[in-house]
Amino acid sequence: MKIGFIGLGIMGKPMAKNLKKAGYNLWVNNRSRGPMEELANFGCVPATQAEIGEVCDVVLTMLPNSPQVREVMLAPGGVAEHMKPGSVYIDMSSINPVASREIAATLAERGIEMLDAPVSGGEPKAIDGTVSFMVGGKQEVFDRMKPLLLTMGASAVRCGEVGAGNTAKLANQIIVACNIRAVAEALTLAKMAGVEPELVFRAIQGGLAGSTVLNAKAPMMLSGDDRPGFKIDLHIKDLNNVLDCAHAVGAPVPMTASVMEVMQWLHAQGKGQLDHSAIAQYYEALSGAKLRE
Amino acid sequence: MKIGFIGLGIMGKPMAKNLKKAGYNLWVNNRSRGPMEELANFGCVPATQAEIGEVCDVVLTMLPNSPQVREVMLAPGGVAEHMKPGSVYIDMSSINPVASREIAATLAERGIEMLDAPVSGGEPKAIDGTVSFMVGGKQEVFDRMKPLLLTMGASAVRCGEVGAGNTAKLANQIIVACNIRAVAEALTLAKMAGVEPELVFRAIQGGLAGSTVLNAKAPMMLSGDDRPGFKIDLHIKDLNNVLDCAHAVGAPVPMTASVMEVMQWLHAQGKGQLDHSAIAQYYEALSGAKLRE
Repeated sequence: MKIGFIGLGIMGKPMAKNLKKAGYNLWVNNRSRGPMEELANFGCVPATQAEIGEVCDVVLTMLPNSPQVREVMLAPGGVAEHMKPGSVYIDMSSINPVASREIAATLAERGIEMLDAPVSGGEPKAIDGTVSFMVGGKQEVFDRMKPLLLTMGASAVRCGEVGAGNTAKLANQIIVACNIRAVAEALTLAKMAGVEPELVFRAIQGGLAGSTVLNAKAPMMLSGDDRPGFKIDLHIKDLNNVLDCAHAVGAPVPMTASVMEVMQWLHAQGKGQLDHSAIAQYYEALSGAKLRE
Repeated sequence: MKIGFIGLGIMGKPMAKNLKKAGYNLWVNNRSRGPMEELANFGCVPATQAEIGEVCDVVLTMLPNSPQVREVMLAPGGVAEHMKPGSVYIDMSSINPVASREIAATLAERGIEMLDAPVSGGEPKAIDGTVSFMVGGKQEVFDRMKPLLLTMGASAVRCGEVGAGNTAKLANQIIVACNIRAVAEALTLAKMAGVEPELVFRAIQGGLAGSTVLNAKAPMMLSGDDRPGFKIDLHIKDLNNVLDCAHAVGAPVPMTASVMEVMQWLHAQGKGQLDHSAIAQYYEALSGAKLRE
């Protein structure tokens, strides 16, 4: 089975490496040359997007958002025009589920199957091959592709038809954003009340407040490490998709809207390239208290 | 060492049983007779509060809030008047940290040491003896009492001087309340977007959205099981303490204030005795969508 991989960014590059390590034949493409050369040295075949479409049985993309996915796949001369009927397209980007369904419908006309399979876990889990896949698409296609996904991830759960993966990812991003903000609000209160946030973090880890966010992000807030990880600007992109989807289906998302405003403020302060744990800096600005030692 | 235990409610009763099972001699007191008789049959000594004060080397309380703790300990004829100098008082109630410090100051005048040691984990962990203690008080007293606490809990972390335990608990309750609300908002969006919330829950569990709240509360939201657990009205009590503390120290807590309003609405709907996962019912009322099958 020949695999194409388009989009070798923070997440895509280590995921492609994990596929190669698992023994797959990999054709790779990226907007900039650096990651392609790195993967060529790793035994992958650098290729144009058209070549990938022609050669590969399965094409994977890991791109920033819906417009980039549409461009790569559906633009005149794009990948879809080169793919064979019966081949499979798996989009691992986090995009608007409405866009996923539209792209799948266009591909279906050409006899190409599609899964939307966005991931959660960030760069460390991409490197470890332990991301979580949230998948939408036909059961039969999912069953066939699951072993491929599990070379890059620890879990892959099918949530429904195409678009369901990205809908689950929106839910994921709501919870992550709100929980990060809650951790920042809570630790700031502790600090201002004269209690060491580091000790509070350790005391509450084992109880009902415990979470992957708490374990991953509280230490970053406390040490002042705001290297991404996952950038504020990317989370803003995801929350835009949440709000678009919510408005379209009439879902109430006041908490998401509020945390979106916090992230927009951070973006306006020039902090959009920082890790989303930098939400703590909103509370530091409001309170004058410093979580970071 | 003779131990007194006052307050045998949902949390207190199983915690007292765990102390007794661990071999401690236990004098017990409760406002209503039922739990005292149950624990008498379990080998504990039913006693008045005055007797507990006179007899015991360590007195524990597990009460609803600051006024009850003040009443039991500091009212004329209260426990403090009967306790010996050199004895230790451990308040495991979740109360305002300002009240903890005031009570400790009064006890100190009588030569009585105090720890504030609120817990997280709820009834199941109280029964299993695996609650998390967040502790404030002198290091020496904490070191001496830690084995006692660990017969009821899986962890006990000292966060600072008296009041620090309850400050950590406030931080804990902010994170728990906000995370429950985020889970409800996220699952409601998924449902309205046509994706099964149960599958979304399973898909996101392993990623950055994963948390103790998600694992414990999403299944309750999805099954319609709203038996407490931890009641809305008790969480309102804790968030009142959060807001009081935040206002006193000037900490910004807009997210907590917002989730407090959701809980107050649920209380006004007559749902204050339900588990705090009933926050999902706020979203169901707004959206018309039913998470519960």
